[in-house]
Amino acid sequence: MTRSEKPDPRVVRRARWERATSSPLLVCGVLFIVAYSVLVLVPSLPGWLSPIILAVVIATWLIFLFDYVARWLLTPRGQRGRFVRATVPDLLSVLMPLFRAFRVLRDIPYLSHRTGAAVRTRVVAYAACYAAVFIYVISLATLRVERDAPGSTITTLGDALWWACVTVATVGYGDTYPVTGLGRLYAVMLMAGGIVIVGTASAVVISYLNEHILRVSRRDAEGSTPVE
Amino acid sequence: MTRSEKPDPRVVRRARWERATSSPLLVCGVLFIVAYSVLVLVPSLPGWLSPIILAVVIATWLIFLFDYVARWLLTPRGQRGRFVRATVPDLLSVLMPLFRAFRVLRDIPYLSHRTGAAVRTRVVAYAACYAAVFIYVISLATLRVERDAPGSTITTLGDALWWACVTVATVGYGDTYPVTGLGRLYAVMLMAGGIVIVGTASAVVISYLNEHILRVSRRDAEGSTPVE
Amino acid sequence: MTRSEKPDPRVVRRARWERATSSPLLVCGVLFIVAYSVLVLVPSLPGWLSPIILAVVIATWLIFLFDYVARWLLTPRGQRGRFVRATVPDLLSVLMPLFRAFRVLRDIPYLSHRTGAAVRTRVVAYAACYAAVFIYVISLATLRVERDAPGSTITTLGDALWWACVTVATVGYGDTYPVTGLGRLYAVMLMAGGIVIVGTASAVVISYLNEHILRVSRRDAEGSTPVE
Amino acid sequence: MTRSEKPDPRVVRRARWERATSSPLLVCGVLFIVAYSVLVLVPSLPGWLSPIILAVVIATWLIFLFDYVARWLLTPRGQRGRFVRATVPDLLSVLMPLFRAFRVLRDIPYLSHRTGAAVRTRVVAYAACYAAVFIYVISLATLRVERDAPGSTITTLGDALWWACVTVATVGYGDTYPVTGLGRLYAVMLMAGGIVIVGTASAVVISYLNEHILRVSRRDAEGSTPVE
Repeated sequence: MTRSEKPDPRVVRRARWERATSSPLLVCGVLFIVAYSVLVLVPSLPGWLSPIILAVVIATWLIFLFDYVARWLLTPRGQRGRFVRATVPDLLSVLMPLFRAFRVLRDIPYLSHRTGAAVRTRVVAYAACYAAVFIYVISLATLRVERDAPGSTITTLGDALWWACVTVATVGYGDTYPVTGLGRLYAVMLMAGGIVIVGTASAVVISYLNEHILRVSRRDAEGSTPVE
Repeated sequence: MTRSEKPDPRVVRRARWERATSSPLLVCGVLFIVAYSVLVLVPSLPGWLSPIILAVVIATWLIFLFDYVARWLLTPRGQRGRFVRATVPDLLSVLMPLFRAFRVLRDIPYLSHRTGAAVRTRVVAYAACYAAVFIYVISLATLRVERDAPGSTITTLGDALWWACVTVATVGYGDTYPVTGLGRLYAVMLMAGGIVIVGTASAVVISYLNEHILRVSRRDAEGSTPVE
Repeated sequence: MTRSEKPDPRVVRRARWERATSSPLLVCGVLFIVAYSVLVLVPSLPGWLSPIILAVVIATWLIFLFDYVARWLLTPRGQRGRFVRATVPDLLSVLMPLFRAFRVLRDIPYLSHRTGAAVRTRVVAYAACYAAVFIYVISLATLRVERDAPGSTITTLGDALWWACVTVATVGYGDTYPVTGLGRLYAVMLMAGGIVIVGTASAVVISYLNEHILRVSRRDAEGSTPVE
Repeated sequence: MTRSEKPDPRVVRRARWERATSSPLLVCGVLFIVAYSVLVLVPSLPGWLSPIILAVVIATWLIFLFDYVARWLLTPRGQRGRFVRATVPDLLSVLMPLFRAFRVLRDIPYLSHRTGAAVRTRVVAYAACYAAVFIYVISLATLRVERDAPGSTITTLGDALWWACVTVATVGYGDTYPVTGLGRLYAVMLMAGGIVIVGTASAVVISYLNEHILRVSRRDAEGSTPVE
């Protein structure tokens, strides 16, 4: 009975909490992105709407923070260090809410395949989704701080998205670049993301190549000894 | 008899279809590239030629679309999801026809080797061919939209090819860059391609290095125990 | 008794030396960074402080050099070549002292885990620490030589750090770049570091992906044959 | 007796040829680099020296070509295709002579180690040497065509080397870039080299990381079952 030990009741409660909060948190994530987009992109909000939007942004942020703390408390004392290490993406999603939204992707049915192809497909799908949201949110944030800076080259959402793509791909033409301190901080975050994306692309190609070589070798081995 | 089950007659028909259409589709791909090149590079076509060229471009496009739909229909209902996932490159080739042309490369006789070297050689050859066509076609498309834009730095085919190489390699000097929305979209496609190309290069070097280390280790092991 | 041979007394002495000097060298590394920062960032030092700061910078440098020579001498003659090859990072840390400071990180308790996850966490932690110090020190050094050069674009610490990040990530917008010979040399060092950082990121992602694929495969294999 | 078949006498003759020509070809490679450097860097050669230098450049080139053809002829007819595939670097060295010079590095005594560390050290050493010569020769060639071009930003050897490093590392600030067609062609070669160098760096880090994880796992496994 080494494998199926009786689970800690607190871990069970955390799993139940996570299942119950999955959908509400997805809604929160989408709400945050919409509210933040309105905040940045609509220059002159009506006086009554402005505080509502700001309230939504802050409220969704607090909800994610509350959820993380709740899950931390539902973890047995001895496993909290491991919980923090294992949920670094969730911790990041507290800082950048919609990331959390993609947790729903975890339950797609691929997982039951035996080959590496399914895992690779999932990794590519995840990476693409994360990259898209990452680029969009950073673009918005950068646009907000750069728009009115003197000498700025990022003044529209189009410019900001273009700049973000050029940065993530580590191309960096230099036609658009941030000039404010905060804008440069966002840029460094994008660069870090870009390095991870390039790494993920390499990893997927390498995994595919290895499996392909293995399959060809085996087929040859079978082909050359057709009769046992 | 688990391995050699009787194949589905529809799969057989699809294989026969694919064998029969291979050469005509290669011709179509080449035709498309030539017609598109003429369309972009020859500024003032004679009045009677212009519609012919345009017709060729559209017709070849439709043929690739028709071929993909036909193969989808020739796939048994339960395997269509897998077919779509397995033929993502073909789906892309519907959008960018000549890609399909390189399917002929699949039948080169290397495949019967047992080492990974042959697979690596094939991967490098494929990647180089795809990259060349990819860069050429994107250059043409970008040149078309950028040529007459105000403030454009991409005004000749030479500029466009140079810009595309600088972008794919993720160097991005910034002496040439797109300024139109569509041009920037093509640039993002190039960057995505560049990331995959860098990843493939890494994968090939890694595969080679691993095999090399393994071979050296084995030779040492044999050398140190010459007599059993 | 092939494995637990009696160790050479000199190797034992070197190990004892390394244990004893660990903390003092960490202090030296921090001192160096602080002194060098003051030297570069405070433009008009009081007359009496300037020689003290310079003395600290030179003294810490000499201490690291002395430590390396001492360890080399404590290595048996036949193993000195191997010692040099195995301590390339330490040799580099003689040239860039604080690097050595991170040796204390070696003793963190993770190492006793069996999975690759702990090793990856450590590699990421190391790489991040090294990258941070590397970028900071190179920024200072570049700022020192570029600040007063005609046509320079790197005139403040903020500019220098921003330039260093843009270079390490191989983005290279071109809004800031060194114009002096020494500044360009530092830039080439940053680029080499950037290539290693990108490589490390790829390595970590690949290692994670491989293990993930393996785990999924095994779980499937167990799941499909629940009863033996 | 499957493994130690009697070798073809022609293969033996090729091996003898390769051993005999190794040192002279190294001298040729060095001669070529020196002569080419003089040709590019010394603007006004005395009238009598200019043809001598040019003769040296052309003669060394012809010698490498002759050597390659000789080795091809010394290969049995059936193995010539494999010879060409296996000696792509040598074929490239016909186009860029000093590359050949590094063949002497093949005989360094590391090879007899059993671990992957020695192979990695060798790969890094090779890559660094190749990269250095590659960057130097391309810099010279680019300087030659760019120096007198209107609007050129590459006018001294320092500029050319700086530009080459910035390009190989795929940073691309954009302060220096080629403007002539031939200069751009050399730049594309540098970019291709840069992609391979980044890939090699990844490969080495990955190989090291994998071995490190394996070693840690084994030590743990041994440590937890000290007595059998």
